[in-house]
Amino acid sequence: MDERIREHARTLVDWSARVERGDDIVVSVDEGAHDLAVAVCAELGERGASVVTTYSSAELDRAYLRAHDGDFVASDAELALYERADVVLRLGGPRNTTATADVAGDRQAAYARVHQPAREARLDTRWVSTVHPTRALAQQAGMSFEAYRDFVYGAVLRDWEALAAEMAQLKELLDAGREVRLVTERDARPDTDLIMSIEGRVAVNSAASVAYDSHNLPSGEVFTAPFDTEGEVFFDVPMTLQGQRVRNVWLSFEEGAVVDFSAETGEDVLADVLDTDEGARRLGELGVGMNRGIDRFTDNVLFDEKMGDTVHLALGRAYHSNFREGDEDQANDSAVHMDMITDVSERSRIEVDGDVVQRDGRFRWEPEFEAA
Amino acid sequence: MDERIREHARTLVDWSARVERGDDIVVSVDEGAHDLAVAVCAELGERGASVVTTYSSAELDRAYLRAHDGDFVASDAELALYERADVVLRLGGPRNTTATADVAGDRQAAYARVHQPAREARLDTRWVSTVHPTRALAQQAGMSFEAYRDFVYGAVLRDWEALAAEMAQLKELLDAGREVRLVTERDARPDTDLIMSIEGRVAVNSAASVAYDSHNLPSGEVFTAPFDTEGEVFFDVPMTLQGQRVRNVWLSFEEGAVVDFSAETGEDVLADVLDTDEGARRLGELGVGMNRGIDRFTDNVLFDEKMGDTVHLALGRAYHSNFREGDEDQANDSAVHMDMITDVSERSRIEVDGDVVQRDGRFRWEPEFEAA
Repeated sequence: MDERIREHARTLVDWSARVERGDDIVVSVDEGAHDLAVAVCAELGERGASVVTTYSSAELDRAYLRAHDGDFVASDAELALYERADVVLRLGGPRNTTATADVAGDRQAAYARVHQPAREARLDTRWVSTVHPTRALAQQAGMSFEAYRDFVYGAVLRDWEALAAEMAQLKELLDAGREVRLVTERDARPDTDLIMSIEGRVAVNSAASVAYDSHNLPSGEVFTAPFDTEGEVFFDVPMTLQGQRVRNVWLSFEEGAVVDFSAETGEDVLADVLDTDEGARRLGELGVGMNRGIDRFTDNVLFDEKMGDTVHLALGRAYHSNFREGDEDQANDSAVHMDMITDVSERSRIEVDGDVVQRDGRFRWEPEFEAA
Repeated sequence: MDERIREHARTLVDWSARVERGDDIVVSVDEGAHDLAVAVCAELGERGASVVTTYSSAELDRAYLRAHDGDFVASDAELALYERADVVLRLGGPRNTTATADVAGDRQAAYARVHQPAREARLDTRWVSTVHPTRALAQQAGMSFEAYRDFVYGAVLRDWEALAAEMAQLKELLDAGREVRLVTERDARPDTDLIMSIEGRVAVNSAASVAYDSHNLPSGEVFTAPFDTEGEVFFDVPMTLQGQRVRNVWLSFEEGAVVDFSAETGEDVLADVLDTDEGARRLGELGVGMNRGIDRFTDNVLFDEKMGDTVHLALGRAYHSNFREGDEDQANDSAVHMDMITDVSERSRIEVDGDVVQRDGRFRWEPEFEAA
């Protein structure tokens, strides 16, 4: 076995999920994640945790959803499983990222609604989602399998303690700040100049560990919940939304809401998202990607939005973790949470209350930071 | 997809497990059983059942068991899962039938003990175990993959209703009978002449359906719980026990217990089994294989013991289903249940209370039965 798979498992179990003796663990194994599951089970055995393994397969889901008449009934057994679990480790690893392409969207949505209590019970555990590299994911990224594996382990096997300490500096600035301004200057493309309020919000230091209220491995971002957004923003990183490619999205905000928009590709999908509900036109998240182990876009938001030298904004639902206790009702509410990413490695700056904290992808605590 | 996989799934869901709308189903998917799981999920979706899928992997078990210090704690989450389930469908399909060969037996036994409550909760559901043909099982059978698949579907895709009706005739004879005599006459090998009491016992018509208290697909046997065994018996079908090949076992019984034994190969394993406990020297089961779709031995007891024209006897634990309500305490008790098979297709007879009910593999209700 590739030694990196063992390291991945150790990082997941120790750094991310903080597994202890006697913990009751559900390991969810995707079709292509068997090898990582073997390594994870060895780590869990060594720590004296209890394990039950579930099977996650898009092909099984497709078969079930297509055959069903749509009048779904929730599984009490599944709910009970998650209610009793201390930790849920989700090992992603699809063998075909478009395996459910021919399942009607409303069928999937109806199943998701019935499934909601089990999902909430799962989110009440010390859950962590990670990804085992598969050929299907390599293909989605447009990469060879070997290069993709190198990419995944480059993103996952970080010095998380050091990254958490670095990210804490940005969290501190955002927690103390009232306003963030994002500016990019590009030739022949719409520029970005966006001002967002963040006063009273709590930034999350997403360091790929439940100890930081961070549930993805890899992670490596600091995010907060902006409001009263004004200005324009352009997203130059392509994404796949509802199975369609969406490129070069431009949004114009007034009084916190989108008042105009365009996209070079997939404008209809974008329009659909914006029309979902009232909250879909407002921002739910401002995130700053700080994982420099992620050095390219791979058409997988789990990785893309954590890439160093990027900023992402999400339309729709805000995370309650960005609000002080009692303030959660101020969180933007929506059925959607649509992440869009912009590259800030060049001719860009992030300001907090007028002070430049990042310029051209370099933070002010880095030696390469140009004071300008 | 091979249409036989869909037929297998339909047989499992309708004939075996009697799935109905709203049933809460756990589908346990073995490493190599994915394709059958897809077909099963389609059938379950069509019937409006709820589904949660677990992953069963000998490689995961091995990794966990070897890494653990042996002081196991049961998983409450797994127990809760099975306690809430109506049906558990176990789709076997190993990729390597010796995947746990290097896990110490006492480690496996310790885990099985801790796991016992979850196992019992599972056995309290309408559970069914079946097998998806894999290359590993073909290899264990000494067969090509294509021939093995034909073999499995020949065993599974029967006219179960007709077989159940035929087996009912043998059940009726055994339920009414007081004594079974098994005789085989072979040249140059120890002969069998064994007399067993069955008075007051209830024979099970194992027709591969929970409606018949039968939990294996394929099945096709009638079995009861014999006692007061006297005589000698020779088992000419090889078997694998604790990873070792055991051949040509001979047992001699007096007053219900083994008083002498031998085996051409694996005599030490046999001795170990007999020494397990008091009940290990007594019979727990007498079964008559009646599935003529199983036409060869494949070193897999799920199939071998149901083969037409065979009889199997098990040392050790008896099934409570063979006892009238209130009589269950008469069941032979043991930690082991070791099935051994003998070919009765030639120069053999089974008598009930002195009447020949089968001769040379033909039952008395069959036209080929020779009245002698």
